[in-house]
Amino acid sequence: MRKTATIAALLACAASAPLAAKEGMFTPQQLPEIAEDLRATGLEIDPEALSDLTGFPMGAIVSLGGCSASFVSPQGLVVTNHHCARGSVQYNSTAENNYLENGFLAKTKGDELAAAPGSRIYVTTALTDVTQRMRSGTEAMSATERYDAIDQRTKDITAECEQKAGYRCQVASFYGGKEYTLIERLEVRDVRLVYAPADSIGKYGGDIDNWMWPRHTGDFAFYRAYVAPDGSAADYSEDNVPYQPEHHLKVSASGLKEGDFVMAAGYPGSTSRYATLAEVENTFSWSYPTYVKLVNEWIDTIEEAAPEGSDARVKYESLLAGLNNFEKNTRGQLDGARRVDLVGRRAEREEALAAWIAADKSRAGYAKAIADLQALSEESAEIARQAFWYNFATRPALLSTAQRLYRLSHERQLPDAQRERGYQKRDMTFFKQGMQALDRRYDASVDKAQWLLFLDTYLEEPAGNRVAVFDEALGLTPGLTEAELSAKLDAYYEGTMLADAENRLELMEATPAELESLDDPFMKLAVALYEYERGLEDAAEERDGRALALRPAYMEAITGWQSSQGLLTYPDANSTLRVTYGTVLGGSPKDGMAYLPFTTLEGILEKDTGEDPFNAPKHQLEHIRNKDYGAYYSPEVGSVPVNFLSDLDSTGGNSGSATLNARAELVGLLFDGTFESVNSDWDFDPRTTRTIHVDTRYMLWVMDKVDGANGLIEEMDIVE
Amino acid sequence: MRKTATIAALLACAASAPLAAKEGMFTPQQLPEIAEDLRATGLEIDPEALSDLTGFPMGAIVSLGGCSASFVSPQGLVVTNHHCARGSVQYNSTAENNYLENGFLAKTKGDELAAAPGSRIYVTTALTDVTQRMRSGTEAMSATERYDAIDQRTKDITAECEQKAGYRCQVASFYGGKEYTLIERLEVRDVRLVYAPADSIGKYGGDIDNWMWPRHTGDFAFYRAYVAPDGSAADYSEDNVPYQPEHHLKVSASGLKEGDFVMAAGYPGSTSRYATLAEVENTFSWSYPTYVKLVNEWIDTIEEAAPEGSDARVKYESLLAGLNNFEKNTRGQLDGARRVDLVGRRAEREEALAAWIAADKSRAGYAKAIADLQALSEESAEIARQAFWYNFATRPALLSTAQRLYRLSHERQLPDAQRERGYQKRDMTFFKQGMQALDRRYDASVDKAQWLLFLDTYLEEPAGNRVAVFDEALGLTPGLTEAELSAKLDAYYEGTMLADAENRLELMEATPAELESLDDPFMKLAVALYEYERGLEDAAEERDGRALALRPAYMEAITGWQSSQGLLTYPDANSTLRVTYGTVLGGSPKDGMAYLPFTTLEGILEKDTGEDPFNAPKHQLEHIRNKDYGAYYSPEVGSVPVNFLSDLDSTGGNSGSATLNARAELVGLLFDGTFESVNSDWDFDPRTTRTIHVDTRYMLWVMDKVDGANGLIEEMDIVE
Repeated sequence: MRKTATIAALLACAASAPLAAKEGMFTPQQLPEIAEDLRATGLEIDPEALSDLTGFPMGAIVSLGGCSASFVSPQGLVVTNHHCARGSVQYNSTAENNYLENGFLAKTKGDELAAAPGSRIYVTTALTDVTQRMRSGTEAMSATERYDAIDQRTKDITAECEQKAGYRCQVASFYGGKEYTLIERLEVRDVRLVYAPADSIGKYGGDIDNWMWPRHTGDFAFYRAYVAPDGSAADYSEDNVPYQPEHHLKVSASGLKEGDFVMAAGYPGSTSRYATLAEVENTFSWSYPTYVKLVNEWIDTIEEAAPEGSDARVKYESLLAGLNNFEKNTRGQLDGARRVDLVGRRAEREEALAAWIAADKSRAGYAKAIADLQALSEESAEIARQAFWYNFATRPALLSTAQRLYRLSHERQLPDAQRERGYQKRDMTFFKQGMQALDRRYDASVDKAQWLLFLDTYLEEPAGNRVAVFDEALGLTPGLTEAELSAKLDAYYEGTMLADAENRLELMEATPAELESLDDPFMKLAVALYEYERGLEDAAEERDGRALALRPAYMEAITGWQSSQGLLTYPDANSTLRVTYGTVLGGSPKDGMAYLPFTTLEGILEKDTGEDPFNAPKHQLEHIRNKDYGAYYSPEVGSVPVNFLSDLDSTGGNSGSATLNARAELVGLLFDGTFESVNSDWDFDPRTTRTIHVDTRYMLWVMDKVDGANGLIEEMDIVE
Repeated sequence: MRKTATIAALLACAASAPLAAKEGMFTPQQLPEIAEDLRATGLEIDPEALSDLTGFPMGAIVSLGGCSASFVSPQGLVVTNHHCARGSVQYNSTAENNYLENGFLAKTKGDELAAAPGSRIYVTTALTDVTQRMRSGTEAMSATERYDAIDQRTKDITAECEQKAGYRCQVASFYGGKEYTLIERLEVRDVRLVYAPADSIGKYGGDIDNWMWPRHTGDFAFYRAYVAPDGSAADYSEDNVPYQPEHHLKVSASGLKEGDFVMAAGYPGSTSRYATLAEVENTFSWSYPTYVKLVNEWIDTIEEAAPEGSDARVKYESLLAGLNNFEKNTRGQLDGARRVDLVGRRAEREEALAAWIAADKSRAGYAKAIADLQALSEESAEIARQAFWYNFATRPALLSTAQRLYRLSHERQLPDAQRERGYQKRDMTFFKQGMQALDRRYDASVDKAQWLLFLDTYLEEPAGNRVAVFDEALGLTPGLTEAELSAKLDAYYEGTMLADAENRLELMEATPAELESLDDPFMKLAVALYEYERGLEDAAEERDGRALALRPAYMEAITGWQSSQGLLTYPDANSTLRVTYGTVLGGSPKDGMAYLPFTTLEGILEKDTGEDPFNAPKHQLEHIRNKDYGAYYSPEVGSVPVNFLSDLDSTGGNSGSATLNARAELVGLLFDGTFESVNSDWDFDPRTTRTIHVDTRYMLWVMDKVDGANGLIEEMDIVE
């Protein structure tokens, strides 16, 4: 026993010497600038290679839209997270063939199943800096003109780019509009499901373990990209052939050790690292607490209106899961902000930035821009607080549907290029799918119960937060009783034709006048609110237009200030390709506790209760009990590693990101962050921010020992 | 950042090399037998000294009855856990002087407050082996005779010992009746409260942190023992003087480091380390799951009958807390048993023991005794399962009261020495207190709701588990509706006189005939059940009598078998003085996670929300923010240590135990175990069993910086 004392003493040290982590979601183009640190951290390949999006390894990195993924064979095999492909597993499941429960493995390519409708694989083919074209001349414009110009140029550039058939283009804004990049992506539309382990592996631990460490989730699955025989993107067809990517990743069977270099390449969604003090204060002192309170009432309302086991409940399961997820995440963010004193830290940052600006007269322009931006942030926050209750009060599904249809009827009168984003021809496939899919998540009685809740909270608000046109259209007169209100809403649900999918699809072709004359209460309400909401939108665009002049100056100041400290400023996440790097590293999530960097197969035995979500397949448990580690044993952890922690900087959208070693071989998939990290979208806390990965050794062990997916192992390049 | 990799690598090692811990709650007399290991583990004083109960340091160790404590000054100052003295803080609190909220510190001895009624400090003065007198001739007796003989001899020896005024004696059974020791204790009856920090320090983390690590609880408080001027034990009197113990502990201000030797001396209550397979199976496959289910229903019933904020709720808060505590603990035990496969491990132990017995013909007697003991265990388990529902169905407070009064009336007809334990003259003070205190935890409507719940579950049982005399007395006829049953119970609560404390006290003097003629429904029920329950008791005593012959043989076999492996068998805990030793040690409670051995002041800042139970006093938080560590800083943890972990073997009753370093100086107080340890009463799992202590450096820091208890610091011998 005594020989462990040294280890234990070092465990104690870990507590007193907080572990540092490396902040930053860098664009590939930035990496050569930090080549030295990349090499010092352990990167063995040329850092320059990482900035070539069509070379190795970045050419193997793809987006699923909302999730990240990568090619792992010359035959278009794509690996991503189980939770990113689970919709396709669910879509293909039936009572007889429950692939969620049993997993799915295509024995041959011919057995591969079409993924869920709308599934896409985006292969980035080119990046072009369009800053000059986007921004030229905008400085002298009025705010609204500036907003309109940026908006129109975005549409124009996108449209030009999408002339190329099978491609999807995007103009991405960096540093709050300081820089713009045109991203061109091949849009693979024939995506097929190749292999997904059972939920009891791929979703092991379920919502209970979500954001938690220690973790034992086999969060991986395989798709395959198919294209027309000529190599162009095409809809699903039996004639299609596997896409042959120029690059794919080799898969490491020897994995990583504690302290090893690790990086991840993927598409993080959104962060607010450079939010102003006013934005942070409004979010953490008002928005988040207000959301948490309301969302809890909302959850109760749905659970009451759609009792467990009811048909209605099935339709709202996904919303409930999302709300619970949001509630837990938001509470975690509030905890995290309190723990690190986020508001205090932002105040300090702004003071330090102000001092740097004051130190040099040539920086005076920044001071003015920042003061204006703070004032604008406060103005926007005030408006958001007023609109908060109205936004919920106008949330009934069929009102939103009516509003979208009526808006579409107006937009359709414009040339396509001038239409609002979301209402252009390129958006109609998704628009139609949305109109169709409503039935699966709509129940009139539950929708009404929610609306009543939101109206009750709206009606409690002071007059300043009420909207006259809404009150009048809905007849929210003083002294209205709850029973009267309820009867009023009943008339909406009884009188509407929008609950019928066919009607909704048909109305996509209607003119404004046709919709205005429609005898439908939700449509009448939508029409009544139209001008008011357009006004709100115009005002928001005017504020955005002001921000588009101010935020680039603010980010320029931040960049200059950080540069003066030897730091490279990275842009906030915006769903574009980023690289984050660091090491495999445990952590100290709280005083007196340490996360070890690896979990092991034995942890599954420890957790397993036989009941969902801790119900690993029986034969998997048997392999573990027999210590049947095969070739995937790690002497460092004394077992097969299952999940591991790193200090990488990641967020939602990074799910499925290729986790790479120093030679850019695949060693895992990024799939989550620890609960203490949920606040990292606002503030990267090096002591607690940790990213969770599934280890390739576990993936290969499951494929080999549990699911017999040896054909796929053979298809990939496995390296030691 | 990179320099932490070595530490991190070792963190990883900790996971793969499970930390071992030293099992054993040894009697002081056993310690010389393991002197070598005590020295090897780090003990610096002579191990022999630890077996002298009236020498140093054991002469300083005392019992509070249910808690442990120790003398820390020549003026009778006693230190124990806050939760052990909290009843006295509560007893002295008023709306004006809320000592729970504000803490209490006597400025002078004259300001010290009388502890809660019944508070005692027991100073062990002598141990005598009485095995021979207890057991001689019992082997040849019938089971009932044997039970009666052991019972009578226990009473006789106790009574002889208690001839000495001011002493309380106990005959303790070790190894299931293999050995008996007479323990003589001075019973200090004038106990005074000297100092207790506020709940927001002493109970920091409350029920949420109960059994949890990381922990930040200042679980310490001070009493003082007072005696008559002549040194004899006496009731509270202004003339009394502080008791002058022969020995007291020095208090270390430098504390321990990871890996240091540590031991604790205290009074652990009860363990079942040598339970038979049948007992373990019955407990974990039947009793515990059945309890968990019923207790959850019970909690719901109380919460519904006594809504939050009601007067009734106040009376049931303590029961509710106890039930929740029990439920959490029992679930933890079930988890732990599943995790270590307790039933499998016990089966293995019995097989190994059987093999050892079979290896030598002279051990054949053990085989017979063990087979008989297993059969007896199964018989007892079967009877317990049958009686389970009846025991709850007869649980109404006033029925229990009536049963105790009626039993007392019978016992009082016997000479004192022949009365059942609990009904002798020496027991009457506590009996009377129990009769008085009922009002504080009784509400008729809540009691009735509980009774209905228990009767409903009883009525669901098959005929074999029903008790005819009870069914008849209560009129539980077939087809009885819930409404009829409810009305029947109403008549009990309306017709009883036992809800009145004066009546209860008066009836302590009544004869059986007087009680039999009493027109009280609960008393009538008690009288009706009397003969049946005496029959159960006789049968239980007959089984106990059999066990008293079998279990000593079983323990002799265990002792011989363990001795053959070089192990010293220690007796199960039985509320007698024990010593456990080991090292300061973190642990790995589960795969992928490590507990660090120390928590620090900064952890309080991390946890503090300002709301109970995470509401440290503001000036305490201020001292922490200012890093005002004073003389109590530990360079190893980089702060003042608050709580620490060790691998000591402890259980309930150990609370308040002096935690001692290698020189037997006080370095902390034992106050809890980790959640993963709750199963250790059945099975000491070296990987997860950890004991939690409050560090003397935190105690002194709070006294010095937060509460200004410098007078007490001066009174103690503080050593570096």
